[in-house]
Amino acid sequence: MVTRLDQREGNFEPRFAAFLSTKREVSDDVDRAVRDIVADIRARGDAGLIGYTRRFDRADITSRLRITPEEIAQAYETSDPAVVDALRFARERIASHHARQKPVDDRYTDAAGVELGSRWTAVESVGLYVPGGTASYPSSVLMNAVPAVVAGVERLAMVVPAPDGVLNPLVLVAADIAGVSEIYRIGGAQAVAALAYGTETIAPVAKIVGPGNAYVAAAKRQVFGTVGIDMIAGPSEVLVVADAQNNPDWIAADLLAQAEHDASAQSILITDDAGFADAVAEAVERQLKLLPRGEIASRSWADFGALILVDSIDAAVPLINRIAAEHLELAVADPDALLPKIRNAGAIFLGAYTPEVIGDYVGGSNHVLPTARSARFSSGLSVLDFVKRTSILKLGPDQLRALAPAAIALAKAEGLDAHGRSVSIRLNV
Amino acid sequence: MVTRLDQREGNFEPRFAAFLSTKREVSDDVDRAVRDIVADIRARGDAGLIGYTRRFDRADITSRLRITPEEIAQAYETSDPAVVDALRFARERIASHHARQKPVDDRYTDAAGVELGSRWTAVESVGLYVPGGTASYPSSVLMNAVPAVVAGVERLAMVVPAPDGVLNPLVLVAADIAGVSEIYRIGGAQAVAALAYGTETIAPVAKIVGPGNAYVAAAKRQVFGTVGIDMIAGPSEVLVVADAQNNPDWIAADLLAQAEHDASAQSILITDDAGFADAVAEAVERQLKLLPRGEIASRSWADFGALILVDSIDAAVPLINRIAAEHLELAVADPDALLPKIRNAGAIFLGAYTPEVIGDYVGGSNHVLPTARSARFSSGLSVLDFVKRTSILKLGPDQLRALAPAAIALAKAEGLDAHGRSVSIRLNV
Repeated sequence: MVTRLDQREGNFEPRFAAFLSTKREVSDDVDRAVRDIVADIRARGDAGLIGYTRRFDRADITSRLRITPEEIAQAYETSDPAVVDALRFARERIASHHARQKPVDDRYTDAAGVELGSRWTAVESVGLYVPGGTASYPSSVLMNAVPAVVAGVERLAMVVPAPDGVLNPLVLVAADIAGVSEIYRIGGAQAVAALAYGTETIAPVAKIVGPGNAYVAAAKRQVFGTVGIDMIAGPSEVLVVADAQNNPDWIAADLLAQAEHDASAQSILITDDAGFADAVAEAVERQLKLLPRGEIASRSWADFGALILVDSIDAAVPLINRIAAEHLELAVADPDALLPKIRNAGAIFLGAYTPEVIGDYVGGSNHVLPTARSARFSSGLSVLDFVKRTSILKLGPDQLRALAPAAIALAKAEGLDAHGRSVSIRLNV
Repeated sequence: MVTRLDQREGNFEPRFAAFLSTKREVSDDVDRAVRDIVADIRARGDAGLIGYTRRFDRADITSRLRITPEEIAQAYETSDPAVVDALRFARERIASHHARQKPVDDRYTDAAGVELGSRWTAVESVGLYVPGGTASYPSSVLMNAVPAVVAGVERLAMVVPAPDGVLNPLVLVAADIAGVSEIYRIGGAQAVAALAYGTETIAPVAKIVGPGNAYVAAAKRQVFGTVGIDMIAGPSEVLVVADAQNNPDWIAADLLAQAEHDASAQSILITDDAGFADAVAEAVERQLKLLPRGEIASRSWADFGALILVDSIDAAVPLINRIAAEHLELAVADPDALLPKIRNAGAIFLGAYTPEVIGDYVGGSNHVLPTARSARFSSGLSVLDFVKRTSILKLGPDQLRALAPAAIALAKAEGLDAHGRSVSIRLNV
């Protein structure tokens, strides 16, 4: 049964707090198994990759680790041209939006004559993990690869498992359209280890991004430090804030688009109209029957879905900020007026004609966004995830003389004599 | 014995690779103990904090969890006014440099009439961990707190343990100067748990930053997800690139300023002149005898120090980028000419009059920087660590009609029918 909460009821606050702290993920304890796999790949390289792929993907990749240009050409041939065009269209929109995110270098001289600066450089090489099977989404390839290319990453190495030798051709096409430089037919913890430490065939990368199952997530955590990693995303979620001036069928469709992702996904409606909430709930039940993935969506809706009734849309603001949703739709009369009050959200979709799904594919913004309330402290994937900043400092003798007394006083106060000496020794000239 | 490497020798590459992969940290296995402490604080709140503080810090903090304004006033009175002034001087320089890092919102309409945007908001509340005892550095309080204040964080809650009831008054003064809003007399994993989950006295925060020992690092890793965390810093390091036109004593002083931090710190000199390398090595030995922390610095230098001889300063560039040092000094004739070739470094100090120590205290840039080669994929602490980005999308009926075909094609190709319906349902009007 979908959860129903009413702000006007006396026990709202404890029930809302409990709802917020619901865990939607079972964390498999796979750390030990992953540790063994990572150690084995470090020790045996390609041979290890071939062994695990035989075992887990039931495929022999001896001398076929890397996907060939011919295979990519073939993938284009077997793909629906309309979908290939849609991928190209999406790539253009993602690339032009992300181009605006490139940070600008700063170099200046302050009043004391000290030169300061911040300089941005691209990460040299990035590994991109792409899941196999049903979760092998070409749109996710674009969303992870395009920002890296826009950032200036020179080498983008993708891994994607081919269970029973089967690959989604659209994933290869998306990789090619995005500008991926190398693709390897491997997955799981072994692929993450190969990207982090390198093998005979695969040169190591500096950072690994992309979604994956519990084994992939555990492997990313374990290699973190040796390489950088992106956030570890949890199940997806949408919060729709809608007044009664909406078509309940449209809102129900949006809630179900989220729910069909997987049984741990979460769809929440906040509305100020009880009758509208009921109408949406009915529309959800009606539409569920039409969906090929209706069983998954039903479980998600029953286990984690929620209808929250509020006094007014304004009264919803603190709840919206506490939920800190990955996706937030504002289907209200004046969404731009509500926008400045929203503090925590991964992405905001304004008005009735901006269903969240547009952001999944072709809006231009990224669909890799902070889940599980982490929008309180983190951001979606962007060009910034593929660059790093170096700070720059330059003093001449005069500037050193001006700054020395404070530096020496602080070094002394912290008991770090060699620190003080490194400054004072330059003054005795 | 300090490591000596020579680029002109045949076995340089394997020796340099081995040097790069040297581990400088023993990772204590404290995960289980920390897990128990975190669970206990979640269950018992303040009572748990009081119990662990009695046990680990040998102090009774019942009804004294929070540091009072009177204690802060007293800290000012017991501090050297020159050091207080130095802290104020440092705060001003840090604040004005970091003010330039504030990201700018972006909102625009593209050629298709789609409105897009990126909006930055400050993290609402941040916890700052400050170690007790000898590693209780007032400069680190400034470096962690000032960027948060500049970012617009409203609530900045600091924790600092007082072993045997003793606190460094300069840490309280630095916190006050930086604009910290609350200070609690607690430390260890229990303090991290209190910040993440809250207790009767301490409201939970959204992100925790600041250095700490193995217990603090493990606790931060465990609460990550519930709150954001900063990077887990390893031992500090400096790479000095110097030609023969330098005073060996100055360079030796810089190497030792790093080495005195702790026995796991690392100081590396790269030079193109064997005689200069010898002169620096001699100066190091001479200066070591003068240092109060000479024993620590000696161990660091002997265990992890290195003198690397190169053919030419230009030939050093690939090595510099592979070392990816936290601190990089370019003490060469034309450091600005070398600068564009350097890709991986946390902070770069240009010329003979910019010792790294200036950046530790009063340069204005941050001294919290990526260690252990992580400058290949990450950046030093900045205002960006205290803000997060929300992406914004707004379509009208015309824009939806223009983008719909590609979105529907991709949804269908990915087998996500409800995604397609969420778009198509809005077109039938």
